[in-house]
Amino acid sequence: MKSIDGGVTAPKGYRASGIAAGIKKRNKDMALLTSDSDAAVAGLFTTNVVKAAPVVWDQHIVSSGLPVRALLINSGNANACTGKQGFADTSSSAALVAEKLGITDKQVLVCSTGVIGVPMPMDRIAYGIPLAFDALSYGKEAAHDAAQAICTTDTFVKEVAVEIQAGDASIRIGGMAKGSGMIHPNMATMLSFITTDASVDASYLQTLLRQSTADSYHMISVDRDTSTNDTVLVFANGASGASPIVPGSAVEQSFIEALGYVHTKLAKMIARDGEGATKLIEVTVTGAVTKDDARLMARSVVSSNLVKAAFFGSDANWGRIICAMGYSGARFDPEGVSIGYRSIQGAAQVLDHGSPVPFDEQAAKRILQEKEIFVDISTGDGPGVATAWGCDLTYDYVRINGDYRS
Amino acid sequence: MKSIDGGVTAPKGYRASGIAAGIKKRNKDMALLTSDSDAAVAGLFTTNVVKAAPVVWDQHIVSSGLPVRALLINSGNANACTGKQGFADTSSSAALVAEKLGITDKQVLVCSTGVIGVPMPMDRIAYGIPLAFDALSYGKEAAHDAAQAICTTDTFVKEVAVEIQAGDASIRIGGMAKGSGMIHPNMATMLSFITTDASVDASYLQTLLRQSTADSYHMISVDRDTSTNDTVLVFANGASGASPIVPGSAVEQSFIEALGYVHTKLAKMIARDGEGATKLIEVTVTGAVTKDDARLMARSVVSSNLVKAAFFGSDANWGRIICAMGYSGARFDPEGVSIGYRSIQGAAQVLDHGSPVPFDEQAAKRILQEKEIFVDISTGDGPGVATAWGCDLTYDYVRINGDYRS
Repeated sequence: MKSIDGGVTAPKGYRASGIAAGIKKRNKDMALLTSDSDAAVAGLFTTNVVKAAPVVWDQHIVSSGLPVRALLINSGNANACTGKQGFADTSSSAALVAEKLGITDKQVLVCSTGVIGVPMPMDRIAYGIPLAFDALSYGKEAAHDAAQAICTTDTFVKEVAVEIQAGDASIRIGGMAKGSGMIHPNMATMLSFITTDASVDASYLQTLLRQSTADSYHMISVDRDTSTNDTVLVFANGASGASPIVPGSAVEQSFIEALGYVHTKLAKMIARDGEGATKLIEVTVTGAVTKDDARLMARSVVSSNLVKAAFFGSDANWGRIICAMGYSGARFDPEGVSIGYRSIQGAAQVLDHGSPVPFDEQAAKRILQEKEIFVDISTGDGPGVATAWGCDLTYDYVRINGDYRS
Repeated sequence: MKSIDGGVTAPKGYRASGIAAGIKKRNKDMALLTSDSDAAVAGLFTTNVVKAAPVVWDQHIVSSGLPVRALLINSGNANACTGKQGFADTSSSAALVAEKLGITDKQVLVCSTGVIGVPMPMDRIAYGIPLAFDALSYGKEAAHDAAQAICTTDTFVKEVAVEIQAGDASIRIGGMAKGSGMIHPNMATMLSFITTDASVDASYLQTLLRQSTADSYHMISVDRDTSTNDTVLVFANGASGASPIVPGSAVEQSFIEALGYVHTKLAKMIARDGEGATKLIEVTVTGAVTKDDARLMARSVVSSNLVKAAFFGSDANWGRIICAMGYSGARFDPEGVSIGYRSIQGAAQVLDHGSPVPFDEQAAKRILQEKEIFVDISTGDGPGVATAWGCDLTYDYVRINGDYRS
């Protein structure tokens, strides 16, 4: 596997665009992604009982197992809590895209992110779709435009692309994501879109997606809120010409690794760009009874407000870390826990098999003042290992989310 | 039931004191509470896998069902993650108190709150216990001293006392609590201690405690962190002379109500005094399928960082509220949800059976700028009702918890 330049248009047969339709007061707010040929699609959606209209639309299409051709995304309005009209608006948006592309509306997925409870500005959608259609291009600039258009308060655009060899052919995977920048004025939404020119059957693609998200998106936390619009979609159009990826195939393992890499890369970008965040925190738990125990502990640590605030203060406050492990629901023996901090400034062990280790507070503070901090936790000699990513809790988080909407 | 002045010494036969033993750099840091006669005791303890030494000590005593005579509390050191020495220190502390009082160490409960992973300063404990013993008094000033001594960064002392009639006799219940002020330098711990001169069998007292905490301490959230030291203890010494409280007795219901009132009052004080908080948020969910569903939703709303930050900004951002309900795990139909805000400035409905209600943003902002805000949520016509309390998420929360320890 090698990293390559670009995003969702890096794989063959995908075009993208990102334009300003006027849904937001400024900046790009509409992205279109199309596949030249039928693409299998897999999807994971928010578990929130309150689901935005486009989530319901997309779930229906993904569960049908039928191939798709396009994805329309808007920022600025989540189309959530908008009732029957909201669903009708999603359906109309898909129909407008379908008409332009000469396909059916059921071949068009739709994602929205932004304010809740406000009707979709359909005049803006109708205005934007032809612009987005005209701007469609295979170039990496077009992918970048699309990645920009799905952003909200994200402070950087999140794209990734990789290539693997598959016999004589090469397979590419590209992706873009939108992180937990708050939508003015509402909530954090995670959107992640992956394209590949591999040929993968829809139901197997769904299995691979589920597997790879367990160690990526499910292991990041910015503020524990699960939005009404969270969506991950993976498209596979087979345009690479490589043999289909099937269980047991030669290239299966490298494809799984590459897909996992792309998801993890995007997940880490989302964590790093958490609202108001100044630091990326990577917590690895080893030696847990099971992988699930390790996941519970790692996730609990990166999710704790107290832990996050301590990282903001560059404070080697390991008591909060073991406390967060303790209420995670995981099984472990506190007497077997070792904890260490690492960054490019060095490493400091603070707890060794349940016993506090005297450490140089100033050295620890230097380690924790870096932008990327690793926490290494061992809980025994079990086989369970997991890594989670999060960010610090800052004044800016409160400022961004406490800002009055108008 | 009537509210009366005072705290844990309001019921007959209890003495208290609060003194400075020098465990903290300044202020009172040791409280002693004694009962003149044997008292039945009930307790609830942290569910954290990592339990401080005194929690283990107290659990053992409470589960024995045997009566107790005294409770020693220190702030400034949590005696958590301190291994075998920590437990030995708790045991020694109990023995020192027992010696002074002429009782056995198993009649002495111990609670600690403060820094994690640092050995107990036993010289300070040994210095403080005789001072605390000498200061014991029946007066309400003594109760107040004790309530002060258990505080950490709490901004006000939390005490309550009530009286109910029981035939010719009167029964009193008193209480004190310590909220989620951060212990310099470690974590938020909830401690709550209730005294009554009613006569209640230990196992029945445990049942009553469990029932009354479901609607009080279990319904408050400051920052979702469950500490290593959380403890609620209820003492009943029978000194009122009233007939014992047993299931089906004449005063049973009024005792249950009074106990519930005391717990709820303390729980609300803890929520109001959440670290950095400027507002008390009371969320009531009605019409849920079951009481448990109502509890899940109410608790999820007061726990959401996004909801809390919106209250800090006086922002009627109801999308975050319904979103938090949606990921709570409770069953409900989003189309049946109505949401309104209330304060002494008036009321504003913002959602009516799933449809957004246009509202005056300025009027809503005035409502939300108050110190005490009520959120009324109806989710249908089911019987489930529950209330939860929380606070806003502020810059000060981040400042307090991001402060470097030294």
